[in-house]
Amino acid sequence: MYPNDGFRELGRTECLRLMAEVPVGRIVYTRRAMPAVLPVNFALDGDGAVLLRTAADSALVRAIDGAVVAFETDDVDAARRAGWSVVVTGRAAVVTDPAERERLSRTGPVSWVPARHDVFVRIEPELVTGRALVGGRTLYGVDLAAAVEG
Amino acid sequence: MYPNDGFRELGRTECLRLMAEVPVGRIVYTRRAMPAVLPVNFALDGDGAVLLRTAADSALVRAIDGAVVAFETDDVDAARRAGWSVVVTGRAAVVTDPAERERLSRTGPVSWVPARHDVFVRIEPELVTGRALVGGRTLYGVDLAAAVEG
Repeated sequence: MYPNDGFRELGRTECLRLMAEVPVGRIVYTRRAMPAVLPVNFALDGDGAVLLRTAADSALVRAIDGAVVAFETDDVDAARRAGWSVVVTGRAAVVTDPAERERLSRTGPVSWVPARHDVFVRIEPELVTGRALVGGRTLYGVDLAAAVEG
Repeated sequence: MYPNDGFRELGRTECLRLMAEVPVGRIVYTRRAMPAVLPVNFALDGDGAVLLRTAADSALVRAIDGAVVAFETDDVDAARRAGWSVVVTGRAAVVTDPAERERLSRTGPVSWVPARHDVFVRIEPELVTGRALVGGRTLYGVDLAAAVEG
């Protein structure tokens, strides 16, 4: 916790609980040695891994398969200057195991833009960090306080 | 434009117009050789540069001053599977010119978490890219169509 800068760190369990409430996050990676970022829908696996589903031949898959990436979610209320953000950092890899693919095709994320050949990408939750902006806590009320203390 | 993948590229003018509608974006940078991302409020300068205001002694400033970063904004309606995202990529630098600091203290972004010594950071709009998800276009209706064609 950093009581003086208006932010509070969130624990891993709280981070994953908040992430599960939003359907879209942003994958952060490197493309041609430049920082790149793209919003995508996702699902969380039971262990906190982030699951994406995208076209097998996409530039995104080529860029992230085997690389360490960050996946960011947030929910910020600008009017109240309050909210939270969570980042999962870890290695991304296309799921190749047939049984695992089968499981994810039943339980994993649905592609918003159906492709002829799509794949699942799994981002290992090696590092899960989050923070809540509590500068506006008295305005934001009980919900954010609960999120921070929870 | 990629009519077959459900996305459409947006032009620079349209990108900047959309960005101006949202108060918060995400700065994407490298920290200890790892991808890092943080949501922050921002303002756009007249030339499309992204302006941030943050504590002079923050870890963020140390990480991005002089570095090429990406700054992402989006507005995605998950229920309709439609929306847009815009990324500005360019060099970030703390504004040191006194006259420019004076101008930005009047017209630039306001810090949500006031610091004793804050600085303005300017991200040059060297590359401005955006795309709209138009797979849900008929559901999303006129607004997104206007954004795409505008």
